[in-house]
Amino acid sequence: MKFIILTLFPEMVMAGLTESILGRAMEKGIIDIKAVNIRDYTKDKHKKVDDYPYGGGAGMVMQAQPIFDAYNDVIKDLKGTTRVVYLTPWGHTFDQKMAVEYASADNVILLCGHYEGVDERVLEEIVTDFVSIGDFVLTGGELPAMVMVDAISRMVPGVLTNEESGETESFHNYLLEYPQYSRPEEWNGRKVPEILLSGHHKNIEKWRLEESIERTKKFRPDLYEKYIQSERK
Amino acid sequence: MKFIILTLFPEMVMAGLTESILGRAMEKGIIDIKAVNIRDYTKDKHKKVDDYPYGGGAGMVMQAQPIFDAYNDVIKDLKGTTRVVYLTPWGHTFDQKMAVEYASADNVILLCGHYEGVDERVLEEIVTDFVSIGDFVLTGGELPAMVMVDAISRMVPGVLTNEESGETESFHNYLLEYPQYSRPEEWNGRKVPEILLSGHHKNIEKWRLEESIERTKKFRPDLYEKYIQSERK
Repeated sequence: MKFIILTLFPEMVMAGLTESILGRAMEKGIIDIKAVNIRDYTKDKHKKVDDYPYGGGAGMVMQAQPIFDAYNDVIKDLKGTTRVVYLTPWGHTFDQKMAVEYASADNVILLCGHYEGVDERVLEEIVTDFVSIGDFVLTGGELPAMVMVDAISRMVPGVLTNEESGETESFHNYLLEYPQYSRPEEWNGRKVPEILLSGHHKNIEKWRLEESIERTKKFRPDLYEKYIQSERK
Repeated sequence: MKFIILTLFPEMVMAGLTESILGRAMEKGIIDIKAVNIRDYTKDKHKKVDDYPYGGGAGMVMQAQPIFDAYNDVIKDLKGTTRVVYLTPWGHTFDQKMAVEYASADNVILLCGHYEGVDERVLEEIVTDFVSIGDFVLTGGELPAMVMVDAISRMVPGVLTNEESGETESFHNYLLEYPQYSRPEEWNGRKVPEILLSGHHKNIEKWRLEESIERTKKFRPDLYEKYIQSERK
């Protein structure tokens, strides 16, 4: 699967996506992540990519031409299905279900806006999906794009080991993770719950499920409600 | 305002937070961002920071000692109010209101987990706030921490110029941004809406408000509902 990020800050994006699990998946060739600098495509002699908004108002607007040319350059090598995402507060709020859905595309292009926004006409021309990662304002689309690439990559077959994939599944039954403990048995006067040292797997599982339910009920009543409903089915 | 990120990937975090507006605010000394490598604090001779979970199960758990020692080392230099955030799917969902609230703290410490999680005992010992940025699973807490630092920093007085801060305010009245257009007037057969070229500021404002309302109604009926309620007051 291919990710292409159209951005003014390609180094920042790549630095955030080459560590840990994603770095390993790229080395294995399961995913491919490329950050393309929109500025490389401007025809302006001063390498400008933005200009004042028509009608007045604060800030600068990213112009259509450099984005459109960058887009056309990258799609000419792509095969299969391509989704073109613009990261914006008015998009659909990203969640795990969308991560799974995007993981079935062959290519995802992520357009990162900056300044006051992007000329509407190029959005109309190239974008298929508008996505937001939450109700907060960020400096640009880079961090949300990185979040999407991370979450989607983890859902691409082969990226996670069998061990790792168990973790993600837990989110699917609407329950939060149970508390985890590791060595030593006693730390700073605090002991690991005895049940975890018992070696009695059935009891441990039962305890963990109860803790998960308890925690979900306390911290995320919305998820707890969904869990209860799914149990009733 | 000080941000300290406790992480296993300090370079990745810093690369994502030194561009653009945040980089400028750091240079001006309005905010200070430091990423601290948890691994530097391990007492394990192999520099290990994780171990198997008690009670069995997949993956590795980050141990209490290195995190606790890193935390104690960084807090000794801090003055004023400090919030200690653990990024986790079971936290409160981050939003703009929380960004404003956090911006009034003197220090925010963000603990980034990895692997299957973090030993519960160190969370009990040091964490004041549990925060999630959304319902999706990521490889670690680094990207969410970067998202929080970006959103919070923008709310710290002096970080945004007057021009820039207008943008963020628009989110406050529950309306999405209106469409933006920049040079040229005609691009790829698409023209800038004539009203924006009219020079008639009152009409332009009216058009933009209508477009904002239209877009909010279409893409974010939940926000539109809040807008309508706030207009009634």
